[in-house]
Amino acid sequence: MIKYPNKKETFTATKISSKNRGMVFENVINETNEFYLNNNIAVIHKKPIPIQIVKVDYPSRSSAVIKEAYYKVPSTTDYNGVYKSKYIDFEAKETNNLTSFPLQNIHLHQIKHLEDIHDQGGIAFILVYFKKLDEVYYLSISNLLNFVQRSNKGRKSITLDEFKHYGHYIKEGFNPRIDYLKIVDNYIKGSLWAFFYFSSILSYSFS
Amino acid sequence: MIKYPNKKETFTATKISSKNRGMVFENVINETNEFYLNNNIAVIHKKPIPIQIVKVDYPSRSSAVIKEAYYKVPSTTDYNGVYKSKYIDFEAKETNNLTSFPLQNIHLHQIKHLEDIHDQGGIAFILVYFKKLDEVYYLSISNLLNFVQRSNKGRKSITLDEFKHYGHYIKEGFNPRIDYLKIVDNYIKGSLWAFFYFSSILSYSFS
Repeated sequence: MIKYPNKKETFTATKISSKNRGMVFENVINETNEFYLNNNIAVIHKKPIPIQIVKVDYPSRSSAVIKEAYYKVPSTTDYNGVYKSKYIDFEAKETNNLTSFPLQNIHLHQIKHLEDIHDQGGIAFILVYFKKLDEVYYLSISNLLNFVQRSNKGRKSITLDEFKHYGHYIKEGFNPRIDYLKIVDNYIKGSLWAFFYFSSILSYSFS
Repeated sequence: MIKYPNKKETFTATKISSKNRGMVFENVINETNEFYLNNNIAVIHKKPIPIQIVKVDYPSRSSAVIKEAYYKVPSTTDYNGVYKSKYIDFEAKETNNLTSFPLQNIHLHQIKHLEDIHDQGGIAFILVYFKKLDEVYYLSISNLLNFVQRSNKGRKSITLDEFKHYGHYIKEGFNPRIDYLKIVDNYIKGSLWAFFYFSSILSYSFS
């Protein structure tokens, strides 16, 4: 039997329990992504849960039963895909808190991953669901990083007011349920204008 | 990468024979992706294997052991990520054949997925390893689709010569081992030129 170091085990355990709480939010996001896919808007999928397989039985030639396996700490985020040629990557989290979102709910390597994505020109963000308020917020990695930096010497959470100020509230709809790509559109438009601006300067200086 | 204890390694190895055949090529791609990541060239990861979990035991509060689970047919591809702002998606396959690659080695829904990605402006392709020749080829989804279409009424495989003609041979290097992004560069350049061409027509007609 593979023994993880104790710390990691606890780590995984917290992850699993928070996964459970997130079940409904997860379904809402999956439905949203299905809508995007079926309407040729975007191709965004949830990644499978990473599992360490230890023992497999073959009761017959055609079937395999995994008899021993362990949850692994995910090294990346839950969702990624493509929208309008852009790479999209995000993590979805939820909290029972009423006034703030604790930063410890996101693994540090997931934040690092989102930062890497951003540096490569991808669109990286988190979606946070305040369960008891039934409100979803979008927060870009750039803004998230500011709060992570602050947490090194001060507050270790992001307040609801900060989400309202630095993030974007996403009103729940019928279909798609959580139209987060509407927010992504603003970021794409922003970078497109920058590109056209740059192109026009370029073509001006060459003409 | 997590290291299995030696015993388990042998055990896993003997049991999962079909997975094993692909092991070396998989490692080479993972090493390549690690090189890309560590050198800030691209962020491309292998997705976890999709598993259907049926029974989980909790021997203690902090640990979970999966006692019954099954392999699921993957609904997407093995690898995706971001490179130069572009979404990258591919499937890696290998064959023991000497002269052709059987199309049945790729699931139809994986081909559909690559097509969806292409339609959204992502870069989609397959990497095929001819094990006995020790040669790796890159084939774009557009070319793959032509062969899939042909297979409906004729040949159900892609010949090595066709890979040479329609695909790109990737010479193995020291680091990165299989520099597939070099081929991707050609596709990005192609679409960038098309974009600049389009922009210049646009700026001409507005001036």
